[in-house]
Amino acid sequence: MRAVVLLSGGLDSATALALARHEGFTCHALSCSYGQRHGVELEAAARVARHLGAVEHRTMNVDLAGIGGSALTDATLAVPETPTKGIPITYVPARNTMLLSLALGWAEVLEARDIFIGVNAVDYSGYPDCRPEFIAAFERLAALATRAGAEGKPMRIHAPLIEMSKAQIVKRGLELGVDFSMTVSCYQPDKAGRGCGRCDACRLRRAGFEAAGIADPTRYQ
Amino acid sequence: MRAVVLLSGGLDSATALALARHEGFTCHALSCSYGQRHGVELEAAARVARHLGAVEHRTMNVDLAGIGGSALTDATLAVPETPTKGIPITYVPARNTMLLSLALGWAEVLEARDIFIGVNAVDYSGYPDCRPEFIAAFERLAALATRAGAEGKPMRIHAPLIEMSKAQIVKRGLELGVDFSMTVSCYQPDKAGRGCGRCDACRLRRAGFEAAGIADPTRYQ
Repeated sequence: MRAVVLLSGGLDSATALALARHEGFTCHALSCSYGQRHGVELEAAARVARHLGAVEHRTMNVDLAGIGGSALTDATLAVPETPTKGIPITYVPARNTMLLSLALGWAEVLEARDIFIGVNAVDYSGYPDCRPEFIAAFERLAALATRAGAEGKPMRIHAPLIEMSKAQIVKRGLELGVDFSMTVSCYQPDKAGRGCGRCDACRLRRAGFEAAGIADPTRYQ
Repeated sequence: MRAVVLLSGGLDSATALALARHEGFTCHALSCSYGQRHGVELEAAARVARHLGAVEHRTMNVDLAGIGGSALTDATLAVPETPTKGIPITYVPARNTMLLSLALGWAEVLEARDIFIGVNAVDYSGYPDCRPEFIAAFERLAALATRAGAEGKPMRIHAPLIEMSKAQIVKRGLELGVDFSMTVSCYQPDKAGRGCGRCDACRLRRAGFEAAGIADPTRYQ
């Protein structure tokens, strides 16, 4: 069975891909170039897709930088290096809605009925579109939005990490053979893909390895 | 109040923009270049946005041609020139989901709470993502997907044409001052924006003017 797996090049989506493969899916990996300043993650995604046995990896371009509003796509906004309250400035407006809609379109063309996304509610940094109720709402939407759904074959949206802690994700990924040194989580990595060690994504990642009692293979600047 | 209005350059979305202006919204028009073969509609969208008083018009690029699967984005698939049963090959997988997700992202940045889309269920040509239940499901999703939604300020998705016939849309648009000669509905227009007169979109449009008893200002090849 075919599945479309959203793959950012980070730790979570790599583990989601490994889980999809473990469940027996033939995986078509989809990355999105949306004007993010951490474009080096797309190179990581290509490596991870090969490493974990995706049959195909595509990168689609969407110019979210044109709408701005996020420190990840607007070079004039700084990435915070200390924890902030509420929804952080690194939130990209409607990003997961857009990513899932692209995955949905590709899944329809592939006649796949399964989409995997590595969102995570526990360590979710306050992003509204990482919550279980968001995923459930997208699944209901997908059943109405597509040709297959209209013909009574709804799409399943899998978010297998959604209730896991970062430490649990790290452990599960390692069990499934994920080489986390290939992945890039940092919001502002250098050109070699090395993390800053200070942004939310680096802090959550580092804390996850610590809590799991596993040596952190991440390359820092 | 600000609204994001999806504007394709066709008859329906021009009327949706006119309705949004009539309701008093400050309109930010959004078009999407998604690899459609009828790219001339984007030039029409820019003219229509100016004509109907949008304060801004942006075109975002998304390469849906990369996933194929539709006669509108895949040059190897012919546009049908006779009516077909079921969902036609001109259906672009998950297009309205993707368009609404881009509009949602921009609305969040603008702090707008209203999105207009000119979908139409009566003459909808069999597209699953033009049905009222799809729009309702997207509105439920949007309430969960966004920062404003998470803070108790949900987004409203307006589909004011959804229950109207093409003839009713033509009449309403004319009342509101829409110059339909500026709009392009055809799936395979020539470079001057003239319609083929044979595809589904041309047939529905022509029948709409006939049923409304209004002279058709469309330029045909």
